[in-house]
Amino acid sequence: MKVTIIGAGNVASHLAPALERAGYIINEVYARRIDEAERISQNLYSANTSDNLDFSGSDSVLFLIAVSDYAIEQIAGEIVLPDQCLIVHTSGSIPMSVLELTASDSIGVLYPLQTFSRNRKISFPEIPILTEANTPEGLAMLEQVGKSLSKRVALVDSEKRLQLHLAAVFVNNFVNHMLTIGDEITSENNLDFSLLEPLIRETVDKAIEIGASDSQTGPAIREDHSTMEMHMELLEENESYQRLYKIISKSIIDSKNL
Amino acid sequence: MKVTIIGAGNVASHLAPALERAGYIINEVYARRIDEAERISQNLYSANTSDNLDFSGSDSVLFLIAVSDYAIEQIAGEIVLPDQCLIVHTSGSIPMSVLELTASDSIGVLYPLQTFSRNRKISFPEIPILTEANTPEGLAMLEQVGKSLSKRVALVDSEKRLQLHLAAVFVNNFVNHMLTIGDEITSENNLDFSLLEPLIRETVDKAIEIGASDSQTGPAIREDHSTMEMHMELLEENESYQRLYKIISKSIIDSKNL
Repeated sequence: MKVTIIGAGNVASHLAPALERAGYIINEVYARRIDEAERISQNLYSANTSDNLDFSGSDSVLFLIAVSDYAIEQIAGEIVLPDQCLIVHTSGSIPMSVLELTASDSIGVLYPLQTFSRNRKISFPEIPILTEANTPEGLAMLEQVGKSLSKRVALVDSEKRLQLHLAAVFVNNFVNHMLTIGDEITSENNLDFSLLEPLIRETVDKAIEIGASDSQTGPAIREDHSTMEMHMELLEENESYQRLYKIISKSIIDSKNL
Repeated sequence: MKVTIIGAGNVASHLAPALERAGYIINEVYARRIDEAERISQNLYSANTSDNLDFSGSDSVLFLIAVSDYAIEQIAGEIVLPDQCLIVHTSGSIPMSVLELTASDSIGVLYPLQTFSRNRKISFPEIPILTEANTPEGLAMLEQVGKSLSKRVALVDSEKRLQLHLAAVFVNNFVNHMLTIGDEITSENNLDFSLLEPLIRETVDKAIEIGASDSQTGPAIREDHSTMEMHMELLEENESYQRLYKIISKSIIDSKNL
């Protein structure tokens, strides 16, 4: 089955080779700038590159849009597709319906629920692939593609996918920001951030094994105001972190009283 | 070497058997309620239990206070110690100096930097042990104890330890709260929280390997206001989480412009 990849960012650069390894032929790679398409195609067997969204002559069966969320709508409005193809995007937050702007009758979503960075290897079989399509045939195709990439494929509609994406922001972006602040506090005090590594790993292991809500410890859940005040004093010179500390601590205390 | 454990909470219940495995003799376990001391001593070879802080007749060399932070000062004021012993507490946030309330000339801190839960096994060798003492002899003893428990022992004074404890609150308590919210959002939408597990594990792996600050992705760092607004709408019924979302996102955007 031939596949066209639209986009050359983090998701595209991971997804394209993963699809090849799973036996699909990457027919074409599109990027607004041809050199970016070439950067992706370098890691592929025989993909053509293009900076033109007219795919009327393409023999691809599946078109995968893997671009920034804000760009999906514009691409959907511009792309020219061959008859008889399935076009999907890979976004967690954008509804499938945005692809109705394309002329295709068959639209869908294939959302790999993971954080991708360009130079970081990712084990695809572990990544949940969330699918959605407007036809049973399209859904069957996406399930087949999903299963060839991952051990876990689930059908999730646009509304639920957005909720999952919101949850992902809390457990990834916001968790990462807390780790960034921990990193800053340790470096500012000439302390080795790696001292916190076993704690960070145990935080995640414990939350996954016994549930995050039952895992909470620390000054906020104990309502230990004297320790919280000492911490707030340390943050005196960083008003923004001080406010974060206060509001997250309050939220932890509130969650206890639910 | 004989050791007395003051306290019967999460830290005490992990530390006492770990010290025994490392070759120390747990002489006595104190708790305000004798049945709590007995719960700990059940897992020990031959520890006496006590609800009395008069240890003037004890032959222990090391007294380890492992109680809630707020209770340390009171214990320090009440405890009666034999001549010639080292008394330490195990808290990240309380200064060593609080132990000057005891009559002992030799005071210190042995802080295991980890989150402890009663029924959860912890691999002690991986836990950084942070030590501090007011005499070289006391410090040498704590280093010996630390090294018998863990691969990683570091000398950190009270001021730095409090900074580390603050960082620990961000990377443990606050991370755990973000995971709790992710869990709530998924369960409220009948989505399986385990869909987020690979993302959570990768979040931590990536932050530890390439640094959290370089790992950030998502709508805030991209200043993708349209996605952030969609997320805020989903949180409309939970004003507290909406405020958290807004403030943490703003903090991520601010960190970008530093």
